[in-house]
Amino acid sequence: MTNYRAIEARFSRLRANKIFETFVIAVIIFSALVIGVKTYEIPPFIDKFVRILDWGITAFFMIEITIRFIGDEDKKRFFTKGWNVFDTLIVLVSIIPIDDSELAIVGRLVRIFRVLRMVSIIPELRMLLNSLLKALPQLGYVALMLFIIFYIYAAVGSTFFASINEVLWGDIAISMLTLFRVMTFEDWTDVMYETQAVYPLSWTFFISFIFLTAFAFLNMVIGIVVSVLEKEQRAAEEDPHERITKELSEVRAELRSLQDLLKQQHK
Amino acid sequence: MTNYRAIEARFSRLRANKIFETFVIAVIIFSALVIGVKTYEIPPFIDKFVRILDWGITAFFMIEITIRFIGDEDKKRFFTKGWNVFDTLIVLVSIIPIDDSELAIVGRLVRIFRVLRMVSIIPELRMLLNSLLKALPQLGYVALMLFIIFYIYAAVGSTFFASINEVLWGDIAISMLTLFRVMTFEDWTDVMYETQAVYPLSWTFFISFIFLTAFAFLNMVIGIVVSVLEKEQRAAEEDPHERITKELSEVRAELRSLQDLLKQQHK
Amino acid sequence: MTNYRAIEARFSRLRANKIFETFVIAVIIFSALVIGVKTYEIPPFIDKFVRILDWGITAFFMIEITIRFIGDEDKKRFFTKGWNVFDTLIVLVSIIPIDDSELAIVGRLVRIFRVLRMVSIIPELRMLLNSLLKALPQLGYVALMLFIIFYIYAAVGSTFFASINEVLWGDIAISMLTLFRVMTFEDWTDVMYETQAVYPLSWTFFISFIFLTAFAFLNMVIGIVVSVLEKEQRAAEEDPHERITKELSEVRAELRSLQDLLKQQHK
Amino acid sequence: MTNYRAIEARFSRLRANKIFETFVIAVIIFSALVIGVKTYEIPPFIDKFVRILDWGITAFFMIEITIRFIGDEDKKRFFTKGWNVFDTLIVLVSIIPIDDSELAIVGRLVRIFRVLRMVSIIPELRMLLNSLLKALPQLGYVALMLFIIFYIYAAVGSTFFASINEVLWGDIAISMLTLFRVMTFEDWTDVMYETQAVYPLSWTFFISFIFLTAFAFLNMVIGIVVSVLEKEQRAAEEDPHERITKELSEVRAELRSLQDLLKQQHK
Repeated sequence: MTNYRAIEARFSRLRANKIFETFVIAVIIFSALVIGVKTYEIPPFIDKFVRILDWGITAFFMIEITIRFIGDEDKKRFFTKGWNVFDTLIVLVSIIPIDDSELAIVGRLVRIFRVLRMVSIIPELRMLLNSLLKALPQLGYVALMLFIIFYIYAAVGSTFFASINEVLWGDIAISMLTLFRVMTFEDWTDVMYETQAVYPLSWTFFISFIFLTAFAFLNMVIGIVVSVLEKEQRAAEEDPHERITKELSEVRAELRSLQDLLKQQHK
Repeated sequence: MTNYRAIEARFSRLRANKIFETFVIAVIIFSALVIGVKTYEIPPFIDKFVRILDWGITAFFMIEITIRFIGDEDKKRFFTKGWNVFDTLIVLVSIIPIDDSELAIVGRLVRIFRVLRMVSIIPELRMLLNSLLKALPQLGYVALMLFIIFYIYAAVGSTFFASINEVLWGDIAISMLTLFRVMTFEDWTDVMYETQAVYPLSWTFFISFIFLTAFAFLNMVIGIVVSVLEKEQRAAEEDPHERITKELSEVRAELRSLQDLLKQQHK
Repeated sequence: MTNYRAIEARFSRLRANKIFETFVIAVIIFSALVIGVKTYEIPPFIDKFVRILDWGITAFFMIEITIRFIGDEDKKRFFTKGWNVFDTLIVLVSIIPIDDSELAIVGRLVRIFRVLRMVSIIPELRMLLNSLLKALPQLGYVALMLFIIFYIYAAVGSTFFASINEVLWGDIAISMLTLFRVMTFEDWTDVMYETQAVYPLSWTFFISFIFLTAFAFLNMVIGIVVSVLEKEQRAAEEDPHERITKELSEVRAELRSLQDLLKQQHK
Repeated sequence: MTNYRAIEARFSRLRANKIFETFVIAVIIFSALVIGVKTYEIPPFIDKFVRILDWGITAFFMIEITIRFIGDEDKKRFFTKGWNVFDTLIVLVSIIPIDDSELAIVGRLVRIFRVLRMVSIIPELRMLLNSLLKALPQLGYVALMLFIIFYIYAAVGSTFFASINEVLWGDIAISMLTLFRVMTFEDWTDVMYETQAVYPLSWTFFISFIFLTAFAFLNMVIGIVVSVLEKEQRAAEEDPHERITKELSEVRAELRSLQDLLKQQHK
């Protein structure tokens, strides 16, 4: 038991060790490079070598996650943290031997997602992702509004234009994809000219859609900028005003003591 | 009469009921899905089923709008609210039996616009739309300026380039559409290269147009950002300064009482 | 002489008259519509009618500018204002009878530029244009930087790629136009793939160019936003702080009078 | 020795001379024009003339850099400044006689990079570049995040799509270039439609990629705007608050002297 405690303490120290962390990051970068190399046509013997490296990386990650788990004092809370679950899953799926060609792709994808461990291990990236995720709810209603605009235009589009171009306006899902294409201005005039040959006024459909989405999108961006600036400002402004208010209350305290002094003299 | 009053009160309660509202939203989402399904090729029996569903939704909306109308205490003001008029119109047009194939499209469009009832029923979306509409007047003069730029360039374009490409520069309306395409950078070089073959200096026309519109557009965006930020700031700033000024006036009041005390002692 | 004075005074009143101004704007809009109509294929008798209208508009503008000139008290300063010079020039060139087909185009262009009189007559548009022009100098050095980037890349581009595609990289001027096209992302990959066939590393040229220009452009936009916000803020902030500082100096004045009172009592 | 000192002093004055600076800028602009002229097809005798001009410019730059070096009081620090090293290198490489056609391109490139001397000589441009470079580190982690997103998507892309289009998805490097193309919306639907023919759900790959990169990019822009504004604000805000706080401390000092006065009276 004391032996186990000693290991726990040693692993806990190891976790916090800067060199250990740097080494883990190096292995993650190395595993990313291995993934990159695999996309090139490589001679069989290098392919074999890469395969061995791959198992080595998997083994290293398994050991690393074990050290992290044992080194954690509160083992119950270990799997409540999203990143720990993610790391463990990546390792577990990696060690399942897969021969089926269908599942082999899953195996390859999991190895690619190992690169995301960079985010889990570098605190700055983790914070960045968190702040990105925190910004999402703000977008909620504007995103819903954009979706309603897309849905209505897609319904109108597939009602009128399905007979013109089945590939672009066949059903509501395809129409939404086509509208997203129009929103990114990607060959949108080709799409429009095609429909204008049948409905000469269809340009109103496209121009109004572009204006609506651009306007909603602009509003979303401004909304984020304003809310971020506001938060920063509030944090920055409190200091000087607090200080002044504090100073003022001290001035009043001194005035009161002065008054007391005068009253005392009177007696 | 008392019976009617009782119904009015009951409907008024129903209107404000959270479950009722959620149910209405569910029906709107369901009607949106029905519209989506209709864009796919569906076997006849499902088509029949969808048709029945459609009538069911129309009936539900008619009942709902009736409940809202009866439940409203001030019946005269009911139709002064834009959204109530919109809801009623959507329902009324839906129940008109249309057989004419020309008008059938109107019927289909009205069913699609039902999705907009989402905006009328969810307060957050209604507020968002209002704030979007409020931002519009600010754009007024910049939009007019942009329109003047477009009009002049379109007039020049159709004067010079109409003989080069009738489809793109045939008249002033088509030229404005072509210029909008240039503004979105959509294959604008193809348009330019074509005219450059005849007028080698025509690149000045396109480059100056892109710069002018980009500059005016940028100015519009900055204008909105600044005015929004200003409004927010004014709201945020008043508090601390008001507080400090108030505190200061109290300091002065105490000083004055101190002076009075001293004068009294003198006597 | 007194007669002339009376006319001058009457014209001065007329100039400031709201109805007169609205009528002038109406004529300008009408002249813009006439320009638009001319771009359509029109039957000869309408063409004749449009020609007469055109002369009518020119005559009206000539009368209007005469009224403005006579109604102006300080006639020397009349032509120091850019917009007056612009208005007069537009009218003067319009009345020159042009038969030569070469110069006929100048005549048409001048008629188109009449639309710009909208800007000269509506004060809000004039102010908007002024504020746009005022923002230009701020862009000065960033624009110079962008030009240097363009020039260097165009020189490198025409050195290496002129033999690949004479049309896109023939000389430095054409190369700059091609680079502007790349900056707007218009079929830039086609341009790149072509050069990559000869120089496989040429993607570095394009990617670095895109990053540099995007970064410089972004910086320019941020610079404008910041400078505009700063100006607004300074205007908005002075008020409360001035007020507080003023209040404080009054507090100190009262303290001094209190001190004097005490010193008097001592004597 | 005194002679050398005199020359040093004279060169130091010359360096700071406004006319000398303007002349150097003129020569740089002229050298830029020479570079531009060389990209056009020019008759042999002009080519010869340009060659002579080129040597003249190189000679002038050599003299100028010598004047700067001798005119600098602290000669050790001269080459610690990046711009001096850059200027010297440009001149040194220019004077190496190159006949080999391979290296001739290096010679041409060096002559083009002379245009960058504009940045080294105009202080405003130098400051602008410095502020651009200072903004770079802020982008660090967002750039790393973007790179991870690119790398993962490129790995997935080349795993699935390499068999569909070898040119676009052949290996991870090409895939990243293709993804950059998708990010700039350049014919991205062509890329997508091609893959959708094999994997109908591949639109999720492209749409999610576009959203992720757009979101990360937006965040980057907002981050820069906010940090720049914050810095400006802190600089602008300190003044009034400092002033008020200072004023308040003086109020308290006067109050204390008042208290002392009262205590003295009491004795």
